[in-house]
Amino acid sequence: MTVVATPVVNRNADPSAANPIADQMARLGRAARAAAEVLAQAPTDLKNGALMAAAEAIRSAGTTILTANRQDVAAARERKLAAPLVERLILDERRLEAMATSLRDIAALPDPIGTILARWQRPNGLDISRVRVPLGVIGIIYESRPNVTADAGGLCLKAGNACILRGGSESFLSSTAIARALAEGLESAGLPATAIQLVPTADRAAVGILLTMTDSIDVIIPRGGRSLIERVTAESRIPVIKHLDGLCHVYVDGAADPVKARAVTLNAKMRRTSVCGAAETLLVDRRAAETLPLLVADLLAAGCEVRGCPETQATDPRVKPATAADWDTEYLDAIMSVRVVNGVADAIAHINRHGSHHTDSIVTEDTATAEAFLAGVDSGIVLLNASTQFADGGEFGMGAEIGISTGKLHARGPVGAEQLTSYKYVVRGNGQVRP
Amino acid sequence: MTVVATPVVNRNADPSAANPIADQMARLGRAARAAAEVLAQAPTDLKNGALMAAAEAIRSAGTTILTANRQDVAAARERKLAAPLVERLILDERRLEAMATSLRDIAALPDPIGTILARWQRPNGLDISRVRVPLGVIGIIYESRPNVTADAGGLCLKAGNACILRGGSESFLSSTAIARALAEGLESAGLPATAIQLVPTADRAAVGILLTMTDSIDVIIPRGGRSLIERVTAESRIPVIKHLDGLCHVYVDGAADPVKARAVTLNAKMRRTSVCGAAETLLVDRRAAETLPLLVADLLAAGCEVRGCPETQATDPRVKPATAADWDTEYLDAIMSVRVVNGVADAIAHINRHGSHHTDSIVTEDTATAEAFLAGVDSGIVLLNASTQFADGGEFGMGAEIGISTGKLHARGPVGAEQLTSYKYVVRGNGQVRP
Repeated sequence: MTVVATPVVNRNADPSAANPIADQMARLGRAARAAAEVLAQAPTDLKNGALMAAAEAIRSAGTTILTANRQDVAAARERKLAAPLVERLILDERRLEAMATSLRDIAALPDPIGTILARWQRPNGLDISRVRVPLGVIGIIYESRPNVTADAGGLCLKAGNACILRGGSESFLSSTAIARALAEGLESAGLPATAIQLVPTADRAAVGILLTMTDSIDVIIPRGGRSLIERVTAESRIPVIKHLDGLCHVYVDGAADPVKARAVTLNAKMRRTSVCGAAETLLVDRRAAETLPLLVADLLAAGCEVRGCPETQATDPRVKPATAADWDTEYLDAIMSVRVVNGVADAIAHINRHGSHHTDSIVTEDTATAEAFLAGVDSGIVLLNASTQFADGGEFGMGAEIGISTGKLHARGPVGAEQLTSYKYVVRGNGQVRP
Repeated sequence: MTVVATPVVNRNADPSAANPIADQMARLGRAARAAAEVLAQAPTDLKNGALMAAAEAIRSAGTTILTANRQDVAAARERKLAAPLVERLILDERRLEAMATSLRDIAALPDPIGTILARWQRPNGLDISRVRVPLGVIGIIYESRPNVTADAGGLCLKAGNACILRGGSESFLSSTAIARALAEGLESAGLPATAIQLVPTADRAAVGILLTMTDSIDVIIPRGGRSLIERVTAESRIPVIKHLDGLCHVYVDGAADPVKARAVTLNAKMRRTSVCGAAETLLVDRRAAETLPLLVADLLAAGCEVRGCPETQATDPRVKPATAADWDTEYLDAIMSVRVVNGVADAIAHINRHGSHHTDSIVTEDTATAEAFLAGVDSGIVLLNASTQFADGGEFGMGAEIGISTGKLHARGPVGAEQLTSYKYVVRGNGQVRP
């Protein structure tokens, strides 16, 4: 893999001159397409060998990666990047080790490629099977966290895809060092190093070009904040696996066990407030009026700001009034909006209208109510008596994930190796012709 | 369902005035979204009842439908539409009966909705299932053949989706009459008639509006010629299930049985030349030099024009020289391009470069060669010793189909009821919180 160690920022280049970024991207695309053809046919042990070797290369290149990361962090502080963004950028020994472990975990997953998904015979003797195959070339555009470089590269490789990775410009040097370790892993297994390529420039124009490379990229996966996803969705000429925000809900039903309701609500909101599976809105059945003050008190005691409807405000003077905008806001912070509703039908209507079709949970002991909620809420993940923070490929037992898809096409919910595949029909005959 | 019996053509309307088409389309979208919520929860017997009643309504409204169709056909002839397009437009008793039979066949298919695709337990006791659910609202844009109105509407209904259908303007009156019969079927089963809506205007502006209705439509399926597909792909802000052209190949290997090779080639090309599964290019292994003249003679004898590489031209003076453009041309006519190649690797390279990833067949008695072809050709359907004309949902035993997807995302190959679905994760717990 050819990577340029210094960002090439070229925003004011003369457009009438040769466009070096367009040329660079076109070369990347051709190399990815060629690598994808090799990867699609690569045996499982070669792919796993590359993943194990990449894990080893990340450990042995530890000093180089951490040095590159310190440069990124220093530059980010100089540019006065917000503190949480700088925090997400920082690598240390522990995070390096976690990256290597994740690659080894991906190696241990079953190989999805070649699996026969269905097989049947036709009366005319044709034998039809639907067989899992790779998607081809995947473009992944992400922000900040440099470990995504290893996770995304590793998952694509496992599923037999080549990938073109475009990390945040603030993590450019860290991602470059990590990508070099992944390329070493591929080379040591005898696979093309170009199966995992990082866009070798921090120039933003590269993203615009990437989104139009319909000949060399089969699918785009954006992972990041709302503005990134919206830009990608609006500009991409390539199909997108969407990862929108997580405006997740907990609904405490009148038939809820109050102990479970309190534990699930507090965990769903406060375990980590910055993850997409964190709950943002609590809906409480009017029949659970006795539990409402306990839920509010728990949140306030944990340092969570509560913004409530009038009935919720009546439970505690510290509750602030919720505005109409609150029901549509993903706080990703220690803030929760709370609303009293009239039973499960009301809760379903609120969630389908205001939610982001990501992850929503009901707390109830009533089976019929539970099933109505699980069927009626139109989200990728619906839970009964469990925290929304379980919305995670690892927690589902799927291994690493690239993100949680909120779209309904192709992949919904956690996107792991299996979701990075397509299928083909293989039909075996003995000279059959169609009458 | 509200349908306007006469096309509203309004191309020169003052854009600053209220836009009646935009308003009409917005109403259609809201009605579809509301109907989709009902359809998603509709029990199997209601959906099947609506399909059976729609089949009956098409038969009892036969005279009305045929009268509307005669008006369409007369208008098409007046506008001097090409003869094959007029032919596709014409309905008669037999075609009406085929439409009703197709609806009954769709009713007889298993209901894909609610199927548990996978289910597993986690060590913490969480019970996870992946359950098939409808996609929501499907927009289908198609050309000419009015029977697509019944097939597409029926398949969407079976899979619990609402749909907005936009047929060709030349079949507007026929499609309106058919859609009215489908609406009758829905109403008689107690389901919302708005679950199947036809765009109630022949104005082309409606398509442009349809492709931007991201709030009310979940997926767009175009079915028609290349220019339609390209317009939809370029303009749509909604995800598209692509149906590109079928540039299909037959490869006759050196180890082919000449009898099978001749039967498969002739059928793949000449059974029907206008279908997307018709073969356009024949590749012949140099080691099959003795079979080549027989294949060419068969095609010529059947009235097929042959355009060949120099080696093919040497077999018969009637073979015309193939130009570079021939390898990239979908003739949909009695024309075949023929090229001699050096074995299976050469054939795979030619197909992956020039084909449309639709359907390709190898004729060989050698297992290793067959497996190399089936694995290496990157198409939705790959066949061994069988005609490419088997590329059809019905021939696969999947029932009716909306078309053959040449994209790799979501659905590949024949798109039937099962492919018009998504899934959700249902997680059942007992108070679990994430550590």
